[in-house]
Formats: sequence, structure tokens, C-alpha cells
Amino acid sequence: MTHHQVASTQAGTAEKILTGDRPTGQLHLGHFVGSLQQRVQLQHRYEQTILVADLQGLTDNGHRPNKVAENILNVVADYLAVGIDPLKTRICLQSAIPALAELAMYYANLVTVARLQRNPTVKNEIAGKGFGASIPAGFLTYPISQAADITAFKATLVPVGDDQLPMLEQTNEIVRKLNQIAGQEILVECKPLLSNMPRLPAPDGKQKMSKSMGNCIYLDSDDRAIARAVKSMYTDPNHLRVDDPGCVAGNVVFTYLDAFHPDPGYVAELKQQYEAGGLADGTTKQILTDCLQTLIAPIRAQRAVYMADKAQLVAILKQGSEQAQEEADAVLTQIKRAFGLKLF
Amino acid sequence: MTHHQVASTQAGTAEKILTGDRPTGQLHLGHFVGSLQQRVQLQHRYEQTILVADLQGLTDNGHRPNKVAENILNVVADYLAVGIDPLKTRICLQSAIPALAELAMYYANLVTVARLQRNPTVKNEIAGKGFGASIPAGFLTYPISQAADITAFKATLVPVGDDQLPMLEQTNEIVRKLNQIAGQEILVECKPLLSNMPRLPAPDGKQKMSKSMGNCIYLDSDDRAIARAVKSMYTDPNHLRVDDPGCVAGNVVFTYLDAFHPDPGYVAELKQQYEAGGLADGTTKQILTDCLQTLIAPIRAQRAVYMADKAQLVAILKQGSEQAQEEADAVLTQIKRAFGLKLF
Repeated sequence: MTHHQVASTQAGTAEKILTGDRPTGQLHLGHFVGSLQQRVQLQHRYEQTILVADLQGLTDNGHRPNKVAENILNVVADYLAVGIDPLKTRICLQSAIPALAELAMYYANLVTVARLQRNPTVKNEIAGKGFGASIPAGFLTYPISQAADITAFKATLVPVGDDQLPMLEQTNEIVRKLNQIAGQEILVECKPLLSNMPRLPAPDGKQKMSKSMGNCIYLDSDDRAIARAVKSMYTDPNHLRVDDPGCVAGNVVFTYLDAFHPDPGYVAELKQQYEAGGLADGTTKQILTDCLQTLIAPIRAQRAVYMADKAQLVAILKQGSEQAQEEADAVLTQIKRAFGLKLF
Repeated sequence: MTHHQVASTQAGTAEKILTGDRPTGQLHLGHFVGSLQQRVQLQHRYEQTILVADLQGLTDNGHRPNKVAENILNVVADYLAVGIDPLKTRICLQSAIPALAELAMYYANLVTVARLQRNPTVKNEIAGKGFGASIPAGFLTYPISQAADITAFKATLVPVGDDQLPMLEQTNEIVRKLNQIAGQEILVECKPLLSNMPRLPAPDGKQKMSKSMGNCIYLDSDDRAIARAVKSMYTDPNHLRVDDPGCVAGNVVFTYLDAFHPDPGYVAELKQQYEAGGLADGTTKQILTDCLQTLIAPIRAQRAVYMADKAQLVAILKQGSEQAQEEADAVLTQIKRAFGLKLF
């Protein structure tokens, strides 16, 4: 059911994975197909750390910290509900790991302002967010903080979309500069773990599914909300009568069936029938609704159980963060020693 | 002997002072007259924290951390040698206080890149350092880090020269924004404690005394080095014969006598005599040499004692830093609580 390409690594090599989310909303089907499923798989093969990046969430929510704070446990519950196992995957909270902020202070001296401004990912995001001339310093510099997150755990594999590749280049530049100054290989370069799954479109087919658009199917959406979202999906506007031949490309219902239906052979048959004419949009939408309701029902149920015990969620996050701090602090100590700054 | 104006504060008010130095070299007579003497006085009246700002030192020495590392204990020894008392003044090391880096992460979201670029102090420094287009991100953002340093200790008075006033404005902007978002007065605004002592010129009279110019009289300079520096001092180029009237303004020897001679009445007499004619530069230079040698001899001796016991210097810095971390972490915790981010 997963469509991810896992980087070909030899069995037995100790790849370490760093991934995470900004807790600025609940996770949705876009995350499920884009990253969560992959993480559930990866945790069996690799040492995986998932960072709930609340400080990064603040970089464009500096004036509304509650938006970030409120979603931290939501995101942890989402992780657990889809099957991420805190015994296999370390789940930790960025703001609870002081060594990450400290590492970022050192790295900030190795990156020029011009280099940050040239970073294509940051450039696009700045344009998209409409900051105008009011770009928060924390936003411009978040690639430095992200480099701290990645290197603190000596991550070698970072799951990203191709739009995020410049972030990893930036990280590896810092790695090389710092190692050169330190005169030893303290930090480890990372490689991208590219997804070959295209971004899940929103039901209207126009943009990617996004929390801010209000068009998401969440991991706890109920059957009615799922049915409503599927009903609103963009299909083929020229497919006016059932008997007309329909177009599958750009038809959001089929994009979702490709992404979520457990039986690709059956989806292929449906496509053939749709293209030949004689398959109603109402029928394909019903099939998708059934499929998504079946997928989400157990996740929603699990999620409710986890959300009913927030103390447990906090305990998981606390334990993960303490381990993470220990590991990150060891890297920081190595850097301080190499720089001659570890006096006590 | 001090020429500093201590802000008029009511006796009994709990003013807190934050001050410090970038440890990029030994301290010299410019520091002595510009800040060290003042600190020795202030420690009897106020709660004073002196931060050895090694991380700030790295913002323009990112590629040569040893320059910073090597000078940390030098600076602490300088402090102790002039009479700063670690029982009265808390001396701490910036890199040993993780909460400072964490606070800076939060503050960075409340300051725009444009605002940092407009900061006159930073603008002048960037021009002076010849970074060209290669301004390290850590350098552009150091006012944010400095705001963290000041606010972490709830400092209300910050001794500065007037060129540093924009830094305090920047800090107070952050204070107001953060308090507004938090909905409570967590951070405290600071006031400048302006020195009315003009900057001590270098012996050549052309610029301020500066470590990088190689024209400093250090707090451990020996008698010969002092005599040599005084001998090289710029006087009145038109004062060719002893009997000629001389000019006191711009005459570095008199500037130093004003700054360091314990008897202002005697210096006034010398000036009169010099202006009338009949006082040789050799004589004024000898008087200044004697004065500076007398001033520095006990400091140099004390400094040697402290430098001979580096373990003690480290212990002082460690204790101060631990206290500072406790205090800074309390402020950080207040912010996290107000933002809803203190989950554990």
C-alpha cells in the first residue's frame, strides 16, 4: 500500500533517520500518504527520530504561539494512531531539547545572510506566506535550526520532497564547514530519502491538501465529513452523462483511489471503465468514500483512546526528549571541545 | 578617579546590571577606563552580572574559534585583577548557559530581518568589519542574542556607550512584543547607563584603542612596554621647542593624564604650564609613564597570581554560569508556560 521508495542501503548499515512535523494543526490524509505510512515502515529497519518541531512552528506563528502549543499533543496522538511505535521510534519535542538551540548558535556563524536569502525553499516559502518586507529573523534562519536538528542526531537519511532538497544541501554545507574548523569529523552529512509519491491534491484539485485551506480530511474525520469531502471532489467536468467517456488524469477521485485503495488491480479496472464510458462519478465517489471510511475508522478510534490519556502522550514526549537531549548534548560537547570552549 | 555618571536611582531600588565583554583579546587601558573601574564601583551598589560573551565573540570569528577560546580566562583574570569580586559580581560564560540560546530562538520570531538590517550599530559594525556580502547570519542576528542576555537576568541597567543605544532599543522592542504576546509582564525593559567618559584614543591619537590595532596598553603590560607606548604618543606637532606654547586639545598625553592621573588639580597645573610654554613633551610623557606604571604594577601582579591558578578561574566561571543558568531558565520557563509550551 505504500508507494515510497526506500533508499537502497545495505542491510546492517546503521542509517539514522530524522523527520518531523511543525505542530500547527492536526495531521491529515496528505501527511498519511506523504510521510506517516513511510515512517511506520522505516521504524522497523532504522533508528528513527521524529521531532515535533514546535520552535520551527513559531517561526511564522511568533504572534500566536497557542496555534503551535495546542497542536503538539494532537500530532503525537496522530503518530501513535497510525502505528508509529514509541518503543521503536523516538518522538521528541524541539523546544524541550536545549542543545538544539545551542547548536544553531554555533552554526549561524558559518552561514551568510546572502546564502540564506538564496535558499530556494526559503525563497518560495517567503513568497507564499506573504511576509512582504516583514520576514521574521527566525524564519529566514530556520534552515540553520533545521541543520541543528538533523546533525544533533547524526541523521544520515532525511525523508523529504524534492522541494526540500536545498535544505539538505544547506545542512551539508554546515557539516563540512564545521568539521573543517573543528579539524575532525564531528558532524555527519545526510542524504535525502526522496518520496516518489506525488503530493496529494486537495479535494478541489487545485492545490495540495493544506491545513490552512480548510479542505483536509483529518485522521479523525468522521464518516460524514469524509463523505462530504469526497462529494466535493473535482472529477472530469466534461463527463456530463454516465455513458460519456471520462478522463482519469487530474480526476481527484482517481488520484485518491490510487493513493489509498488497497487493490490497485481493481482501481485499474475502474479507470478503464470510466474512460470507456458507463461509470458514474457518483459510483467512483462511493467507492472512494467506503475506502477512506474503512481506512480512517480504526485510526480515529485509536486516536480517541490516545487523546483521552494526555498524560501518557506527555510522558512519551518527555522520555523521547530526554534521550534526544542527551544525544544532542554529546554532539554539542564534541564541538565545544574541538573549539576549546569546554572549560567545565 | 572615576568619571562615570551613575544613573540616579533611588537607594534601595533593586537595579540589576548586565554587562560583559567578547573574549577576543586581553583587556586593556581602554576597557579599564571605559568599563572596568565603573564595574568595580557598581558591584557595591547593585546586583551585577558580567557575561563573558564567547558566543558573541564567535559571530565574527566563526572560522577561528581558538581566538575566542584562548581569551576566556584572560578576561576573567583581568576582571579579578582590577578588583571585580566574584562574591559581589556574578561572572559567567555565555556558552555555558543554554537558556540564553533558547531565549534567542523565541525572540528571533519577533524581530524582522529588515529591522536588524536597519540597526545603526550593526550597520556600522558590518561596514567596519569589511564582511562585504558575506555577513554571517549570527552576526546580523546578534542583537537578538544580546536581548536574550539582558532579559534573561531581568537587567534594568546596561552600561553602554551612546553608539550602543540602538541595541537597547532593539531589546526593549522585543521585551514589549513578548510581554504583549504572553499577556503578562515577564520581561523587563532596560535603561542605558551612559558613560560620560570619552573613548580613550590609541597612542597615535587617530582611533580608539583597539586590540586589533596592536597599539594597546594591556593590564599586564610591563614597565618597558608602557614607557614605549607613552613615548610613541601623539602630542602637539607644532610644539617644537620647549618654550613654545603647546596645545592640550587632541594631545594624547593629556587625554591619558585626564583619564588616569589621581590628582586632577596637578594635571590642570600641567596643562596651564604646557599652554603657556616651558613644559617639554618629554616631561609630560615621563609623568604619564610614572602614573601608568604605578597604576598597572599591582594589577599586573594580581593578574599573574590569578593566571597561575587557572582551576580557580574555571571554578569561578562555573559557579557563576550555574547560577546564571538557573536564573535564565526561570525566565525561559515563564515564557514557555505563557506560550503553552511547557508540557513537562
